[in-house]
Amino acid sequence: MSRRVIVDTDTAGDDTQAILLLAAADSIDLEAVTVAPGNVEFDYHVENAKYTLDVAGLAGEVPVYEGARRPLVKDHEHVPHIHGEGGLGGDFFPDTGVPSADGFAPDAIAEAARESPGEITLCCIAPLTNVALALRREPELNELLDEVWVMGGAVNTLGNDTPSAEYNFWADPDAAKMVVRELDVNLVDWGLTVRDATFEAEFLDRLAEIDTEYSEFYRTATKRVREFSRERRGEDATTQPDSLTAACLVADDELVTESSRYFVDVDEREGMTRGYSLVDELGITDGEPRTRVVESVDEDLFRAMFESMLAEGAPEKPL
Amino acid sequence: MSRRVIVDTDTAGDDTQAILLLAAADSIDLEAVTVAPGNVEFDYHVENAKYTLDVAGLAGEVPVYEGARRPLVKDHEHVPHIHGEGGLGGDFFPDTGVPSADGFAPDAIAEAARESPGEITLCCIAPLTNVALALRREPELNELLDEVWVMGGAVNTLGNDTPSAEYNFWADPDAAKMVVRELDVNLVDWGLTVRDATFEAEFLDRLAEIDTEYSEFYRTATKRVREFSRERRGEDATTQPDSLTAACLVADDELVTESSRYFVDVDEREGMTRGYSLVDELGITDGEPRTRVVESVDEDLFRAMFESMLAEGAPEKPL
Amino acid sequence: MSRRVIVDTDTAGDDTQAILLLAAADSIDLEAVTVAPGNVEFDYHVENAKYTLDVAGLAGEVPVYEGARRPLVKDHEHVPHIHGEGGLGGDFFPDTGVPSADGFAPDAIAEAARESPGEITLCCIAPLTNVALALRREPELNELLDEVWVMGGAVNTLGNDTPSAEYNFWADPDAAKMVVRELDVNLVDWGLTVRDATFEAEFLDRLAEIDTEYSEFYRTATKRVREFSRERRGEDATTQPDSLTAACLVADDELVTESSRYFVDVDEREGMTRGYSLVDELGITDGEPRTRVVESVDEDLFRAMFESMLAEGAPEKPL
Amino acid sequence: MSRRVIVDTDTAGDDTQAILLLAAADSIDLEAVTVAPGNVEFDYHVENAKYTLDVAGLAGEVPVYEGARRPLVKDHEHVPHIHGEGGLGGDFFPDTGVPSADGFAPDAIAEAARESPGEITLCCIAPLTNVALALRREPELNELLDEVWVMGGAVNTLGNDTPSAEYNFWADPDAAKMVVRELDVNLVDWGLTVRDATFEAEFLDRLAEIDTEYSEFYRTATKRVREFSRERRGEDATTQPDSLTAACLVADDELVTESSRYFVDVDEREGMTRGYSLVDELGITDGEPRTRVVESVDEDLFRAMFESMLAEGAPEKPL
Ligand SMILES: [Ca+2]
Ligand SMILES: [Ca+2]
Ligand SMILES: [Ca+2]
Ligand SMILES: [Ca+2]
Repeated sequence: MSRRVIVDTDTAGDDTQAILLLAAADSIDLEAVTVAPGNVEFDYHVENAKYTLDVAGLAGEVPVYEGARRPLVKDHEHVPHIHGEGGLGGDFFPDTGVPSADGFAPDAIAEAARESPGEITLCCIAPLTNVALALRREPELNELLDEVWVMGGAVNTLGNDTPSAEYNFWADPDAAKMVVRELDVNLVDWGLTVRDATFEAEFLDRLAEIDTEYSEFYRTATKRVREFSRERRGEDATTQPDSLTAACLVADDELVTESSRYFVDVDEREGMTRGYSLVDELGITDGEPRTRVVESVDEDLFRAMFESMLAEGAPEKPL
Repeated sequence: MSRRVIVDTDTAGDDTQAILLLAAADSIDLEAVTVAPGNVEFDYHVENAKYTLDVAGLAGEVPVYEGARRPLVKDHEHVPHIHGEGGLGGDFFPDTGVPSADGFAPDAIAEAARESPGEITLCCIAPLTNVALALRREPELNELLDEVWVMGGAVNTLGNDTPSAEYNFWADPDAAKMVVRELDVNLVDWGLTVRDATFEAEFLDRLAEIDTEYSEFYRTATKRVREFSRERRGEDATTQPDSLTAACLVADDELVTESSRYFVDVDEREGMTRGYSLVDELGITDGEPRTRVVESVDEDLFRAMFESMLAEGAPEKPL
Repeated sequence: MSRRVIVDTDTAGDDTQAILLLAAADSIDLEAVTVAPGNVEFDYHVENAKYTLDVAGLAGEVPVYEGARRPLVKDHEHVPHIHGEGGLGGDFFPDTGVPSADGFAPDAIAEAARESPGEITLCCIAPLTNVALALRREPELNELLDEVWVMGGAVNTLGNDTPSAEYNFWADPDAAKMVVRELDVNLVDWGLTVRDATFEAEFLDRLAEIDTEYSEFYRTATKRVREFSRERRGEDATTQPDSLTAACLVADDELVTESSRYFVDVDEREGMTRGYSLVDELGITDGEPRTRVVESVDEDLFRAMFESMLAEGAPEKPL
Repeated sequence: MSRRVIVDTDTAGDDTQAILLLAAADSIDLEAVTVAPGNVEFDYHVENAKYTLDVAGLAGEVPVYEGARRPLVKDHEHVPHIHGEGGLGGDFFPDTGVPSADGFAPDAIAEAARESPGEITLCCIAPLTNVALALRREPELNELLDEVWVMGGAVNTLGNDTPSAEYNFWADPDAAKMVVRELDVNLVDWGLTVRDATFEAEFLDRLAEIDTEYSEFYRTATKRVREFSRERRGEDATTQPDSLTAACLVADDELVTESSRYFVDVDEREGMTRGYSLVDELGITDGEPRTRVVESVDEDLFRAMFESMLAEGAPEKPL
């Protein structure tokens, strides 16, 4: 039986690959895409999500629900320099004409969970505004869901948005705080991404030889982030936080080689630690070790899954 | 033509009188009651709202929508010592058997506003969780509403929940911040309540002679808050923040004798100023003077309206 | 026997009158002037203090100690628009040639207290940086002092520097927090100043007829603040926070008509409530009611003292 | 010519080894020891410093100045479970009878710097209260000092006091903020300590075979912290943050293999990130890259220096 997954995404850059991976995985039934407010204009995220489904051959089939157009409490400027204007490399602005589904993304999440208790898994690869709103709508959300996977935080390591914070947690720190406090989260953080899900030039060249629609779309969508990596980190590389999260969701047993439960909290205050993810690895605080933090993955397997997805639309083939 | 009003309430104590006042006012069409998380258990608030509508002869007619069961981001303990266990004096626990309306309170607010642009007025006499959630659901909410009245804050004066904060703003400071930042609010604060809407022993004795169902309910619902006032402030008095807000909404021209627009913000941080309402009376900051703060009301007229409501169900008679 | 007083001052505007009042009071032995970092350049404050002592005929006799040149932890911009460039109205820049005393102001405070336990009273009419530094140098400072009078805070009322804060507490909120937590303070706040120590046009005209050096200096020093009051508050008036504090210190029994002990704390955080003075008038928190807040003074007596000081150098004559 | 060093220490555990290392280094002239408030009672720290000098044969020769007895603004509980009651393993309470030097530690620092501009190096291995107080006493402190070495912070890694903070920065976050903002600091952080200055069982056994007074004192002083490491981290190891800092100061050229200048700031707020050290490794913020962060040391050389110090009192021999 397939697992039913809703992916909550600010579709830009690697979000596209996460969606493709879930769409292409045989073991997954992609139930819906919900769009969250992220680092380009909201309407771009919506259209990017639809286009990505179109690439996967699922446009119009998998509903795309629009969610909150801005973060819960604290606002922020958009930073299009990371994924490029529009979020897909900077030069590409799809226009699918596919209509959005009726309904508000947080409702779609809450209602799917209510209708099928224990069957829905959330794949959260965006600021967590929609999930937080779903939590206030449905207090039993945690019990009603199967699994919750979140890309977010920087576990006792340097952040990517500020020195203290990863983008998703920084962009809506209040929502992130609510989610880690109220849901049983499987966390894929920025540190793991840097360690185990960074594609460097050699592998990128290899992927470049794959001649499929998926592969071409990958190059388009990550063009700008690759440049950005060169500028900021001096490395010709792309990072795959969102597709790593999707891959862990799909192949937890095979891919995740180390994980632990820790108490996790998020600093929701404005100031130098906005969006900081406190992760109590030593059990110093008296917080409950509720969040499962993925600490290591089989890097080769992840690359194999990714390559197989681009080449054959079959991410699970290497499993 | 009647004005259409939705009242968002954590029905307990004076909320009941605000609902009765709106229900009884000829110029008002009470569209819906939405229930917010307040200082007793949520289900008590819901039942108290239904019972209050029952007293007004509107049970089953005016829908009661249940909203969020807890504040947006920051939680708090309930403080039943103020309005008594259950919220209606401590000894009275109604059980109307009236079902709640289908739908989530924030949706009900957003949908009413969308369906009738410019026609709906909100009367917010509770922590602002539901209104904040409606804002994220409907970004155009401010433009879609007629008026927004909020009971909240302590304008450059001592608070009632902590020295720095009034209860509604303190209980959900994140929601309060969102609301004053994103809606054109008419604000009735705790300071105005103390100055112009405090009923002392003499007037309370006079109200006690009124022998109606409304009047009896009033005595029941405020029994505990009157005791509390004696304990905390050494005064035999009740305060009427919520019914004052409703009265201002009903009779702005006649009742409000002074008001000004100021920049208002709310401190959403935990700590000693959680829920503090900054009100820039001197224009020191560069914030936009958006909130209309009611600074003075005709105290005698308010009493007359209240008395007429209890005695004859006709709050507008003295106008 | 005279009471020995050290005045800690950012000499500008009304600080001068406080110093003159203490210098002229027969019951007071002005032991030293210590200079704190305030709202004009530090060296102006130092020279203004020396000039004020010169007016009082005490230059070179009462030592002037220089203290910290900037606040403890958090910095701020100077705001010369309030007291004018230089702090004495804007056009007057004294140059006495009097040397500063050897030693650091916080040491002078700590050492005087150690040498004469129970004999020294502090009159603090500036940001509390020096007093805080004295506290860390001498842990027993509270026990060693006679009385501590502080001008600072805005007790449950609008501030003068920001809506939430009075200037002295805002300028060095960390120091203010330390002082109210660790010393037994008699507090004269901005609210009291507005209520009971605001000189309006009529009284100012009367003072203008006094033809003495003191009186002339008063007009010079407050010229700019009077203009500022017109601009900001639309009132032709001057406020006398510092001289009121000195007067209360001199004539507590006669002048202070109402006072209470409350728990007081200061918000030292950056942000909208920097320097906010929490004053728990209702005993809501479990903080110790340690600070004596002056709530009302005999306004006529204060004016009489002030007038008598300007006219005859005899502030205590009306007592 | 010897370099003149003042060590500011909350003498307990590894502080003793840092003092011994500085005392024993031929290239160093240990000018003074100043005692800061740390994690056992202040008087223990003072006596431990004197005893350590006694072991080094310098008791009475190198002055020990007592500093502030508590942190600048925010207080904390002592945590004797880390270094044991008294700070030297738990069972050892020296009583040297050596008097403290006259004067306040922050003054001693400021005055030495003034008297010998450019000649004094600070070795700060404690909460930075004294250094912060010296800064407010002497605004030119940075220009007057030669070098400033600070053990503190956790550079984008897990803290040791809380998940977000290292002890020295946590214990007096306000002082730490002032120091990194106002002095040109060479920073040795907790992360470097874990990576390059952790002695494990094998090396500890080897040190145990050294039969000198120094060596015996080392075992006594670190007994408790070794047990603590077993309890908390499940490792039989000791960490040497303070002696590593002293060693880097002594042998910067030989020992420090990697270092970079970054913008560093400290979160002084109460809450989950109290004492957090923001280190902008990627230059994301617009803060000035002022602090030199030691990122890697020659671990073998450090061990050789340490062993040579214990065995022969000659830490510089391996250089
Ligand atoms: Ca994303
Ligand atoms: Ca209410
Ligand atoms: Ca002053
Ligand atoms: Ca230390």
